[in-house]
Amino acid sequence: MTITTRTIAAPVVPTRSALTPLGLDAVTITDGFWNERQRVNGTSTLPHIEHWLEREGWLGNFDRAAAGTLPEGRRGREFSDSEIYKYLEAVAWEIGRLGGDDALDTRFRAVVDRVAAAQEADGYLNTRFGRPGQGARWSDLEWGHELYCLGHLFQAAVARERTSPGADDGLLRIATRAADLICEVFGATGIQSVCGHAEVEVGLAELARVTGERRYLELASLFIERRGTGVLADIEWGRSYFQDDVPIREAVALRGHAVRANYLAAGAADVAVEHGDAGLLDALRSQWDRTIARRTYVTGGQGSHHQDEAFGEDFELPSDRAYSETCAGIASIMFSWRLLLEAPDVRYADHIERVLYNVLATSPSATGDTFFYANTLHQRTPGVSSPPDEVSPRASSSERAPWFDVACCPPNVARTMASLASLIATSSDAGVQLHQFASSTIRTTVLGGLPFVAEVETDYPRSGVVRVRIVEAPTDAVELSIRVPSWADDGRLVVRTADGVEVEDRAVEPGYAAVSRSFAVGDVVELAFGVRPRITQPDPRVDAIRGSVAIERGPEVYCVESLDLPGGDDTLSRVEIDEGVVPVEADGGRLTVALRARPVTDGSWPYAEAFASTEPGEAFTASIAPYHSWAQRGPSTMRIWIPTHHA
Amino acid sequence: MTITTRTIAAPVVPTRSALTPLGLDAVTITDGFWNERQRVNGTSTLPHIEHWLEREGWLGNFDRAAAGTLPEGRRGREFSDSEIYKYLEAVAWEIGRLGGDDALDTRFRAVVDRVAAAQEADGYLNTRFGRPGQGARWSDLEWGHELYCLGHLFQAAVARERTSPGADDGLLRIATRAADLICEVFGATGIQSVCGHAEVEVGLAELARVTGERRYLELASLFIERRGTGVLADIEWGRSYFQDDVPIREAVALRGHAVRANYLAAGAADVAVEHGDAGLLDALRSQWDRTIARRTYVTGGQGSHHQDEAFGEDFELPSDRAYSETCAGIASIMFSWRLLLEAPDVRYADHIERVLYNVLATSPSATGDTFFYANTLHQRTPGVSSPPDEVSPRASSSERAPWFDVACCPPNVARTMASLASLIATSSDAGVQLHQFASSTIRTTVLGGLPFVAEVETDYPRSGVVRVRIVEAPTDAVELSIRVPSWADDGRLVVRTADGVEVEDRAVEPGYAAVSRSFAVGDVVELAFGVRPRITQPDPRVDAIRGSVAIERGPEVYCVESLDLPGGDDTLSRVEIDEGVVPVEADGGRLTVALRARPVTDGSWPYAEAFASTEPGEAFTASIAPYHSWAQRGPSTMRIWIPTHHA
Repeated sequence: MTITTRTIAAPVVPTRSALTPLGLDAVTITDGFWNERQRVNGTSTLPHIEHWLEREGWLGNFDRAAAGTLPEGRRGREFSDSEIYKYLEAVAWEIGRLGGDDALDTRFRAVVDRVAAAQEADGYLNTRFGRPGQGARWSDLEWGHELYCLGHLFQAAVARERTSPGADDGLLRIATRAADLICEVFGATGIQSVCGHAEVEVGLAELARVTGERRYLELASLFIERRGTGVLADIEWGRSYFQDDVPIREAVALRGHAVRANYLAAGAADVAVEHGDAGLLDALRSQWDRTIARRTYVTGGQGSHHQDEAFGEDFELPSDRAYSETCAGIASIMFSWRLLLEAPDVRYADHIERVLYNVLATSPSATGDTFFYANTLHQRTPGVSSPPDEVSPRASSSERAPWFDVACCPPNVARTMASLASLIATSSDAGVQLHQFASSTIRTTVLGGLPFVAEVETDYPRSGVVRVRIVEAPTDAVELSIRVPSWADDGRLVVRTADGVEVEDRAVEPGYAAVSRSFAVGDVVELAFGVRPRITQPDPRVDAIRGSVAIERGPEVYCVESLDLPGGDDTLSRVEIDEGVVPVEADGGRLTVALRARPVTDGSWPYAEAFASTEPGEAFTASIAPYHSWAQRGPSTMRIWIPTHHA
Repeated sequence: MTITTRTIAAPVVPTRSALTPLGLDAVTITDGFWNERQRVNGTSTLPHIEHWLEREGWLGNFDRAAAGTLPEGRRGREFSDSEIYKYLEAVAWEIGRLGGDDALDTRFRAVVDRVAAAQEADGYLNTRFGRPGQGARWSDLEWGHELYCLGHLFQAAVARERTSPGADDGLLRIATRAADLICEVFGATGIQSVCGHAEVEVGLAELARVTGERRYLELASLFIERRGTGVLADIEWGRSYFQDDVPIREAVALRGHAVRANYLAAGAADVAVEHGDAGLLDALRSQWDRTIARRTYVTGGQGSHHQDEAFGEDFELPSDRAYSETCAGIASIMFSWRLLLEAPDVRYADHIERVLYNVLATSPSATGDTFFYANTLHQRTPGVSSPPDEVSPRASSSERAPWFDVACCPPNVARTMASLASLIATSSDAGVQLHQFASSTIRTTVLGGLPFVAEVETDYPRSGVVRVRIVEAPTDAVELSIRVPSWADDGRLVVRTADGVEVEDRAVEPGYAAVSRSFAVGDVVELAFGVRPRITQPDPRVDAIRGSVAIERGPEVYCVESLDLPGGDDTLSRVEIDEGVVPVEADGGRLTVALRARPVTDGSWPYAEAFASTEPGEAFTASIAPYHSWAQRGPSTMRIWIPTHHA
């Protein structure tokens, strides 16, 4: 049995969905915040990753597999194959983003050839298992990551097929041979278990969507339904670590390892959509709601625990040791986007934007060759710079590092950056929806196949003015919907004709502001809303940040960095803010804010009957910057949440 | 070369010290809080531990070693041998505490025989290394724990020799044969490295003190000085994990794994004392100061991180996920006691008391057969009861468990409970010092060998009245010093004769209150101080508990447990306290306190411009109990720090 396929150059293409994703063939980011990051990603990050995959020998593992010399000389962790696949996926999107690139295409094919040579006759593909001297195939489902690696292989093949259809490089065939094998091994009468790290589910679902092969989808469904019934071993951190504690339909929130939890939820959303399974979709929506309301940092980051890279309990979100893994942010975007395609609720797009600006943009340095693995909200001691040519053994490095022993984040950043245009807009029967703001060109069809072309122009997030200029549109009315973020003030939607005549001007509330109009070429729809700095308080149940506020402006969370303070680290450790202070806009996205340095006494014991000094500390003015830009000027200390002074 | 030995039945007996420890031969706890816990320890905990050591096969490993069948069938982690040694140490102290016990002695000897049979011809003793099919001896100093296990062996042999001198069971000989071997292997010209887990240092120092063999002490000194120079491998958590980041003389605070850090510091204190090394002792004192002032929970617990069981940075002490390992508390007592013996600073005894009441007393249940491994300060969700007959794979279990995969804590609790009398009092040339309060008998000599016998009577911690009745004393003046805790109010010292005549009555300040007197039989020295409930605030730099207070009374930290609240877990998640509330004494050490349940709104996102409700919540009265008694009535939630309501 087959399912319907749709040719769209995007990572997620349901056979049918409320909103149709617009892919890299339809949306191009042309300027601004994300264009610059995409440029760095293509010119710096991708070569950087290829260099390290080669240098660390993880690509070489495939050559050794092909030469039959494994396990001797195998390098890297059990999941290192997946980094090659994520790299391939990133390159596939990058080629799509650029509308083709011969040199990149040649590099892509060279890697695919090395992968192809390592695949076994029956389709099995993994450099860590199955040979004499290695663990048997599927013998360590808890930790072996074999299916996880294949999930990334499938996503890479999907990306390639959607951006370079008919490329004839063999990658899709590698993927389907492996998928056919696991359908046999793990199907209804096969091994009744799952992979410790969810990921194969999203890969299988999309491979089904690209090939039309329904059994890939049904295998994903089996994996989704099996998990939660204790099919994996109990471990120190409990089965919740791999979401094997509670069946997905019964869970109330995401829990356990934050990347696994989100990948699983994303895969479950794919299955639910294809099966028209409203019950499963409802369960996922309600888990998303609770996770956002109680288990997410103000940055959009998820996962409080270092030990198991896991969610904490509800409201357990200390800034100290906030883990907030880059990959968990990316995984959370994947889950949210799937829900958004089924229901245009502004909260999904708001959350995606929050993660994009405060997690995805935070991980890579401006030069794209060092990365945060974890994204803490409070750095108490100046980090130690990672040597530019050394692998960091530490996920929790307080400075960005060029590479990690566990290097999931850099290629995950790369594939997300390269495919970012696919998160900007969607279409529906009625028209086009704009979810994220970036100067871009949108070329699609509406009303059953009529061309619709628009140019988006904005300097967002510096301002909240977004202009959509119609380049081509049908004569019949088309509905253009533009997201008004939930934090936006004074939203106003203005429609002008090419010659500047205002035909509409109205206030709009957070949500999607829609204009339905028979657009003429040159018409401009302008959404404008305030991006004034906001002082944000936490829910009192988030105990660890009680009595503190964060400063936000538009989609960006700000932080105080010691390098911007008189007195540096010492001042940062004592910084406080008066209630009612209003930060002032400064150059380059910075804000100027009045702060104080609280007087402290160094005692011999930090708990006493009378401690809190009520004297206001010394006042000073500081320049603060968006969190994503921190730690790029050498070791420093930093905090997002600033204690308030009760005068 | 030899050093001087002193025959005192205590774990720490420096060849000379400002204060002479009084051992189990001199001090007997006769009634009250600790007597009950010692009784439970002897009758329940010790048989419980022996049962599990046998059941888990960790004792059987020695039999398999003797039979030459290892590595086949070896069970337990790499450090499981050490649990047998800690058990032996605990039993040795228990026999000493009881003044002999034939049945226990027989059990002790039976275990020693099994250990003896496993020792190799050259003195090597470890069931995990050195045989064909096992790792080579000393091949994994980072994680292998071979020297760590020997350290516990030495402490067991020392305990036995001091409580049953000349027992002729062979344990001391087993220890010295192993010590002789490592002197050769790790001496000045041997392997220039250390064990990943400090412990052998305290073991060697005490073995030197009991045997007079100086080279054991000098090997401890080599281990102390080598560490911190990068002799161990770098690991994910950094070399600070095993204190190999900075030489001990240059460190400014304890850091890394909290048990390792304290064991190392204790061993370094031993070496510093024996060498008269004032520089090293000063460094240790200053590290102790900073660790207490900035890296210790209000319970006295240490170690914020689950991942590496490690100290956090200064003031990084979130209640959420507070780790506060039981063994770290015990290790901190070990370090503090060594410093106290050299300088009678009340802060050392205050800290020891804080750990005793809020960590050591918290770990075991009232029945002594389940234990907390970690001692969190905030339990957000009701824990899952550990089955009474199953090993817990989780250190962070929110309910006490009978046994753990890593079972360091139960035998560590047992040896500390059994030897507790050794922390009560010391003597000096001038007289006797009373550091901890428990109904007890003290029999020692003063003024160069004259008998001094006193009975201490107190219902502490219920009241702060401690009466010391002189049973026997020299005619010359003897100084009796009694600790006045740093939090004590209205301290008053009264001296009465046998017929009730008050001969002295004066106010005393925190510190040591001394009475120098030619005591007559029946004289009573009575120290009385307030143990009124205190409302304690945190240093503002302990961010995660800002705006909260803890309730303490005497040495006990209190907690709010959901089972005592109307509305249970939900109320606990919203509990707050008005500033200025004064808890009232109730029965059984409980307090009655006026609290409120803050109104909260379940929103979709926990950060907003206006959140903090200033409305006072619903008022109610609750009964609260000491933290050490929590989690004994089934699953519950709990918090020590209570948010304050700013009316």
